[in-house]
Amino acid sequence: MRSTLSVLSLRFMYLLALCGMLFSGGCASIKPDPLPSWNEGPTKQSIVAFVARVTTPGSPDFVVVSERIATFDNDGTLWAEQPLYSQLFFVLERIKVLAPRHPEWKTTEPFASVLNGDVKGALSGGDKAIAELIGATSTGMTSVEFDAMVTQWLATAKHPRFDQPYTSMVYQPMIELMTYLRANGFKTFIVSGGGTAFMRPWTERVYGVPPEQVVGSYGKTQFELRDGKPVIMRLPAIAFIDDGPGKPVGINEHIGRRPILAIGNSDGDLQMLQWTAGGSGARYMAFVHHTDGVREWAYDRDSSIGKLDKGLDAAKANGWTLFDMKRDWAVIFPFQR
Amino acid sequence: MRSTLSVLSLRFMYLLALCGMLFSGGCASIKPDPLPSWNEGPTKQSIVAFVARVTTPGSPDFVVVSERIATFDNDGTLWAEQPLYSQLFFVLERIKVLAPRHPEWKTTEPFASVLNGDVKGALSGGDKAIAELIGATSTGMTSVEFDAMVTQWLATAKHPRFDQPYTSMVYQPMIELMTYLRANGFKTFIVSGGGTAFMRPWTERVYGVPPEQVVGSYGKTQFELRDGKPVIMRLPAIAFIDDGPGKPVGINEHIGRRPILAIGNSDGDLQMLQWTAGGSGARYMAFVHHTDGVREWAYDRDSSIGKLDKGLDAAKANGWTLFDMKRDWAVIFPFQR
Repeated sequence: MRSTLSVLSLRFMYLLALCGMLFSGGCASIKPDPLPSWNEGPTKQSIVAFVARVTTPGSPDFVVVSERIATFDNDGTLWAEQPLYSQLFFVLERIKVLAPRHPEWKTTEPFASVLNGDVKGALSGGDKAIAELIGATSTGMTSVEFDAMVTQWLATAKHPRFDQPYTSMVYQPMIELMTYLRANGFKTFIVSGGGTAFMRPWTERVYGVPPEQVVGSYGKTQFELRDGKPVIMRLPAIAFIDDGPGKPVGINEHIGRRPILAIGNSDGDLQMLQWTAGGSGARYMAFVHHTDGVREWAYDRDSSIGKLDKGLDAAKANGWTLFDMKRDWAVIFPFQR
Repeated sequence: MRSTLSVLSLRFMYLLALCGMLFSGGCASIKPDPLPSWNEGPTKQSIVAFVARVTTPGSPDFVVVSERIATFDNDGTLWAEQPLYSQLFFVLERIKVLAPRHPEWKTTEPFASVLNGDVKGALSGGDKAIAELIGATSTGMTSVEFDAMVTQWLATAKHPRFDQPYTSMVYQPMIELMTYLRANGFKTFIVSGGGTAFMRPWTERVYGVPPEQVVGSYGKTQFELRDGKPVIMRLPAIAFIDDGPGKPVGINEHIGRRPILAIGNSDGDLQMLQWTAGGSGARYMAFVHHTDGVREWAYDRDSSIGKLDKGLDAAKANGWTLFDMKRDWAVIFPFQR
């Protein structure tokens, strides 16, 4: 009897160890909170409840792992977008670096305004001006050269308000949310209006999202053999804008499945959330709502960057969730912990 | 002493069970051949040796899992492409189905030739004719409708020579190769000149390649709300041709990393192999060489479909591998086993 008992207790020890090593999801009592930077309340509960619904075998809302597709906007959803998109800070600095080689920029807009420190004036030309700035700074080089340029800039550039690297200007609760989803079998994608090639050098390190799961805007490129060495040249022409109605198009082209969860923060994400909501079965749609002017920025309907107006109405009409930064997030940036 | 021994033997049993359940890769003596449809010889050896080189920790050629990107052409590399691409059989049948609604096709090329059973004549118009046929049969509907149409066709259509469903016309050794690579931490992608939307409905089931890992040619699409319901409409305009120099472009846009292994079968894959070969570290490039006119088809330099001419020269010049179907493959199609 004793020996049977000791075998059983040994077996129990193994099971406990196995449980800790392999099936930590099944040992609720020792599992730490996967979303520690989220305040307790309805928002956090809605996330946990949704994940339980779609991942519990036998649940009427169960979703097989291969269909657990989650898409996230980047600017204003995963990292800060104020006072300007980070990619725009990159572009503005490149203009200054390249200016000595372009004396004509002193008298040509939007370059002249940038060189005079008048960013607002430079951007008053709208999308056309932005496209010109990006074209002048981010093309005419190989994909490998652009990658290195972005990496080098990010290693030294600092955000003007917080004096932190741009890759530290990420939202800790959103990183926890993506990690939590992946631990529950989701595949997390970024679907951003920003440049694909601007994001890919760092999204895996910072968000755990590999390059092949980054969907963004991109320019035309061309394969060439240069002295027998293959290169991909970045050409000064836009191929695809992954914003607004472009987001479902980008999702369809790149992912080929409809997400079951989508998070954005602006009207540019509205169609992504509509497309996600239009599928059958359990769905989760949310906007990050920038309500914290102290720890971050407070803006929505009237902002020139990250305007959330129609989206706010749609969220109310459809019962989509709002991540209220001030109310729901105990921490915003990792460096504020 | 006895009890210590019995504890040790119990522990050993657990380790054995664990080994079987979890770490089967580490229990060489009980591991079955992962490539049973490949004949023993230098080709099979070259695959196994490459995988060992890049996956053995401490090896100078070790590649981290996230960089183990493998790309495969589809037509003629993963499934048969003779006497015509399967997608073309699909398109030709759609023309016949749609003809009653298009009386003008009786007198308009390339449609008239198709309706008269003169496929060769219809295709004599080259890429323009093919684009017209695809435009007339595969656009003007939603992405969901097209998906259903492909699925329905594949469920009933049979290959004219082998009287098998097209999804059975796949190469068993290549399926084993993809499975073997995935078991060794590789992510397998399809990079095909065929239509992305034509492949995605079945690649996961047939090849184990999920839709988001299928890179192909695609037309323009548009997001719309139809009676409040979001749809993606397929428009009659080509957006991207994923062939020849388009393949490295498609790989760069979609994957954002350079493959370390690439397999094709025609000159349309040459640039994909060049781009793969151009990276640093261990690389594996190969062409499937169609040498078996009995079990499959024998063709290379002079074929109108799947022409392998410059590719053969490049393989010889660069030491790339040729998968000689007659010599290297014990089985070609699964139904021949």
